[in-house]
Amino acid sequence: MKADVVVVGGSAAGLTAAITARRHYPDKTILLVRKEKEVLIPCGIPYIINSIGQPEKNLMPDAALEKNDIQLHLAEATDIDREGKVLRTTDGDIGFDRLVVATGSDPAMPPVPGFDRDGVYAVVKDVAYLREFQHRLARAKQVVIVGGGFIGIEFADEINALGGKEVTIVEILPHCLGLSYDEEFCVEMENVLRERGVKLRTGTRVREIADGDAAEHSGKVVLDDGAELPVDLVILGIGAVANVELARKAGLHIGLSGSIAVDRAMQTSDPAIFACGDCAEKVSFFGGRPSPLKLASIASLEARIAGANLFGLRRESPGTVGVWCTAVDGFALGTAGLTEAMAAERGYQTVCGTVEGPNRHPACMPGAVRTRVKLVFEKNSGVLLGGQVAGDATAGEIINGISACVQSRMTAEQIAMFQLGTHPALTASPVAYALVNAAETAIARMR
Amino acid sequence: MKADVVVVGGSAAGLTAAITARRHYPDKTILLVRKEKEVLIPCGIPYIINSIGQPEKNLMPDAALEKNDIQLHLAEATDIDREGKVLRTTDGDIGFDRLVVATGSDPAMPPVPGFDRDGVYAVVKDVAYLREFQHRLARAKQVVIVGGGFIGIEFADEINALGGKEVTIVEILPHCLGLSYDEEFCVEMENVLRERGVKLRTGTRVREIADGDAAEHSGKVVLDDGAELPVDLVILGIGAVANVELARKAGLHIGLSGSIAVDRAMQTSDPAIFACGDCAEKVSFFGGRPSPLKLASIASLEARIAGANLFGLRRESPGTVGVWCTAVDGFALGTAGLTEAMAAERGYQTVCGTVEGPNRHPACMPGAVRTRVKLVFEKNSGVLLGGQVAGDATAGEIINGISACVQSRMTAEQIAMFQLGTHPALTASPVAYALVNAAETAIARMR
Repeated sequence: MKADVVVVGGSAAGLTAAITARRHYPDKTILLVRKEKEVLIPCGIPYIINSIGQPEKNLMPDAALEKNDIQLHLAEATDIDREGKVLRTTDGDIGFDRLVVATGSDPAMPPVPGFDRDGVYAVVKDVAYLREFQHRLARAKQVVIVGGGFIGIEFADEINALGGKEVTIVEILPHCLGLSYDEEFCVEMENVLRERGVKLRTGTRVREIADGDAAEHSGKVVLDDGAELPVDLVILGIGAVANVELARKAGLHIGLSGSIAVDRAMQTSDPAIFACGDCAEKVSFFGGRPSPLKLASIASLEARIAGANLFGLRRESPGTVGVWCTAVDGFALGTAGLTEAMAAERGYQTVCGTVEGPNRHPACMPGAVRTRVKLVFEKNSGVLLGGQVAGDATAGEIINGISACVQSRMTAEQIAMFQLGTHPALTASPVAYALVNAAETAIARMR
Repeated sequence: MKADVVVVGGSAAGLTAAITARRHYPDKTILLVRKEKEVLIPCGIPYIINSIGQPEKNLMPDAALEKNDIQLHLAEATDIDREGKVLRTTDGDIGFDRLVVATGSDPAMPPVPGFDRDGVYAVVKDVAYLREFQHRLARAKQVVIVGGGFIGIEFADEINALGGKEVTIVEILPHCLGLSYDEEFCVEMENVLRERGVKLRTGTRVREIADGDAAEHSGKVVLDDGAELPVDLVILGIGAVANVELARKAGLHIGLSGSIAVDRAMQTSDPAIFACGDCAEKVSFFGGRPSPLKLASIASLEARIAGANLFGLRRESPGTVGVWCTAVDGFALGTAGLTEAMAAERGYQTVCGTVEGPNRHPACMPGAVRTRVKLVFEKNSGVLLGGQVAGDATAGEIINGISACVQSRMTAEQIAMFQLGTHPALTASPVAYALVNAAETAIARMR
C-alpha cells in the first residue's frame, strides 16, 4: 500500500489536515490511518449526557473523507520507517511521500492514590468507554468532578440536568475556569452553576479516592482540607497529555513540553513529516514561549497549515492566540488571547476597559440579555492583547470578532473606530456597542 | 448661553459625538441641542409595531446625557453665526468654541402623484407621528410598502405578524435587499417573507397612488406594469435625504451628493465645525468614491471620530465599509463591504467562496440551524472585499467578525489561518467553520 500523503489520526487535526491536503494538492493520493471505527467530536463529549443523549450521535461524519477522495485505513500506526518512508500499522505497511502525525492526546492522570479505582472515569474519546460510563452514571447519586476547567463545568451541568444527582466540582485554583478568565468572569459562571444546584469546592485538591464509609456509596473523595465527599462516580477533567509515542519511537525531536517539536510551518525535525493538533508543540502568539493549550480549534488551524505546506511551504503559524468559549444553560463565556491576570504575569503593563449592557436595542426587545465585554490592552502601544465576553449564544461569535482584532494586532484607537453592523433583534445599539466602548474606556485611562 | 462644545442633533450621531467629546475632553462644557422631547431609536422603529408594541418603549435614554455631564437644550437650531461662533435657536443663542452638526436625514419622497395623500406614511422619527400611524394601521386591512430595503421588509414582517392584514412590498429592483446582498441571499429572505404571508411585487415601480375603486378601501396603488393594488395604508421606505439646511444657510460646503462636505477627520469647510451621521458626506472604504449609505452604526463611528478630534485631530475615517444586518422571524442576514455584484460593478476582479453548514456541532445539538457564509476576495491580491452571512441571531456578530477582517484588509490566506473559538452549543465545528472554509474554497479557485 502506498499514498502520496498519509495522515495518522482521524480527529479534528487529522481530518482537517487531510481535507486541506486535498484542497491544495488535487492530484495527490491521500490516505488517513486511524484506529477508531467511529470518531467522537471531542468538544461534544459532555453533551452526550443530556443535550445529545448518546455518544453515537456525536460522531464526525466519514462523508467528508469520501467527498474529498481520502482513503480510510482502520488500523493502529505502530512505527515509522523514516528512511524507507513507510508507516507500519497493525494491518500492513503503507509507503508515503509526506506523513502527517496527528495522534492527539490522552487524558492526564494525577498521581494520587485511588485514581485507578473502579468508578473513576476520564474523558476518553472512545464510544464503548463512554457508553459504559453513561450506564454507570445512570445509577450514580453522588458525582464528583475533579477539575473545574471547561470540561469539568460542562460535565457538571449536563449531569446535574439529568436530575436526582448531587454533583460537586473540585478545583485546585481559587476559581473554576481560573486559567483562562479573569476572576469576575469566573465568579459569574460559578454563580450560574451554583444557582443550578452544582456544588463547588475551589482552592482545594484531591488527596485520595478511597472506599466509602457510607453503605450506599461505594467510594469517597478525600480533599486536602480533610473534607470527605461520599461518591458513586468520579470524573477526571484535569487536562490532556500529548500522545507522542509513535513520534518518539521514530526519533523525531520532542520539545521541552513533551509534545512533538515543530517549526512555524508545522514541520517536524524530519522535513517529510509534519505534526499538528494536541500531539504537536505550540508557542504563544504573545512572546513565542511554549503554550499549554490543547483545543480542537487550534488543532484545526495547525492542520490547515500542515496540510497546505506538504509539498511547498506557504503558511506559517503566528503562534497560538488561544480562543475558546463555553456555555451553561444559555449563559456563555468567551476568551481570546491574554486575560488581565495572564498579561500581568507575563510582564505586560496593561490598561483594561470593561463595558456591560443589553445585547439588543432597545433593551425591551425580545431575547435581550446583559452582555459584558472586557478588553486588555498593552499600555504603551495600545495594542489589544486579549478580550473576554459574557452573554448569550452570540458570545461565541463576539469572541471570534475580538479574536480577529487580536490577530490583526489592532490598537485601542482602531477598535474605537471599529465599523460594526447593528440591529435591534441581533446586537447591542451602535451607541452602546460594548467592543468599541470598552476600547474608548481604556483609551481614557491611557492618558 | 455658552458651551465649549455644542452638538446639534440628539440621535445616534449627536449623542455619540457628545459622549465621545466628554470622554476625550473631561474639562470642557458640552451642550446638546435637539428639537425632539423624546428621541426614537431609529433602527427600532419597525419593531414598535409588534415586537415592542409602542414608540414610547423605543426611546434613547436621556440618562446617558446626565451621566456624561452633557447639558440638554430643547430647541430647534435655526442659524449658525460662524464669525461670532454663535448657534441661534428657537429658544435663544448659544456661543460655542466647537460645533458638531448632526442634523440627520428625512425620509425620501418620490415625485409620483398621490404620495402626499392621506393614509401615506413615511418613516418619520417622531413619536406623535408614529402613534397616529399605529392608530391608522390598526384599522387597515390592505397595506402596501414602497421599497424592499431593510426598512421595508422589517415593516412588512412586523405588520404581517399583527394578523388580519394583507401586506405587499413593491420593489423597483429585481429583488428585495438587492442593493446590499447578492441575489442568492435576497432570494432566501424573499422566500422567508413569502412563507410568512408577505406578498412581493419586485422589478416594478409605483406609478401613482389614487382614490380606490372598491368601496371598502380608500385608495389604490397603481404599478408601472398596470396592476392596481387596493390599499388602506401606504408606507414609504425608499431611503433618506440628508438634512443640510442649517449647514447650507451657514455657507458650509455641500458635497456633490447633497450632504455636508467633510474631510476624513469629519471636519467641515469651517475648522471649528464638524459634521457626522446621515447629514455628512461619506466615501467608500473601497476606492474612496462617495457612498450613499446612511446607517446609525456609521453615524456612531463618524461621531467617535468627530468627538475625539474637536480640540486636536487624532482620528481619521478610512471610509465607510458598510456593515449591517436584518432579521425576519429569527432568520438573519448580514453584509459587510462589497457584494460580488457590487465589486464587479466597481471594476474589481473577484474570486468568491461560499460555505454552508450547521451553526452548532454536532448538527443534532439543540438550536442548530443552517448558516451560509460568502466571502468576496480581490483575485490578484487575495484581499477580502466583503462578506455576507445568512443564519440565526448569531449572524449579527458573525458579520462583525467578517467586518474586522475587511477593515484589517486580511487576505484569503490569513483568513484560512483565522484563529477561532468554537463550542458545540454556540458555533459551527472547527473543522467545518464557514469563515475559514469559505476562504479555503476561494484560494482553491485562485490557482
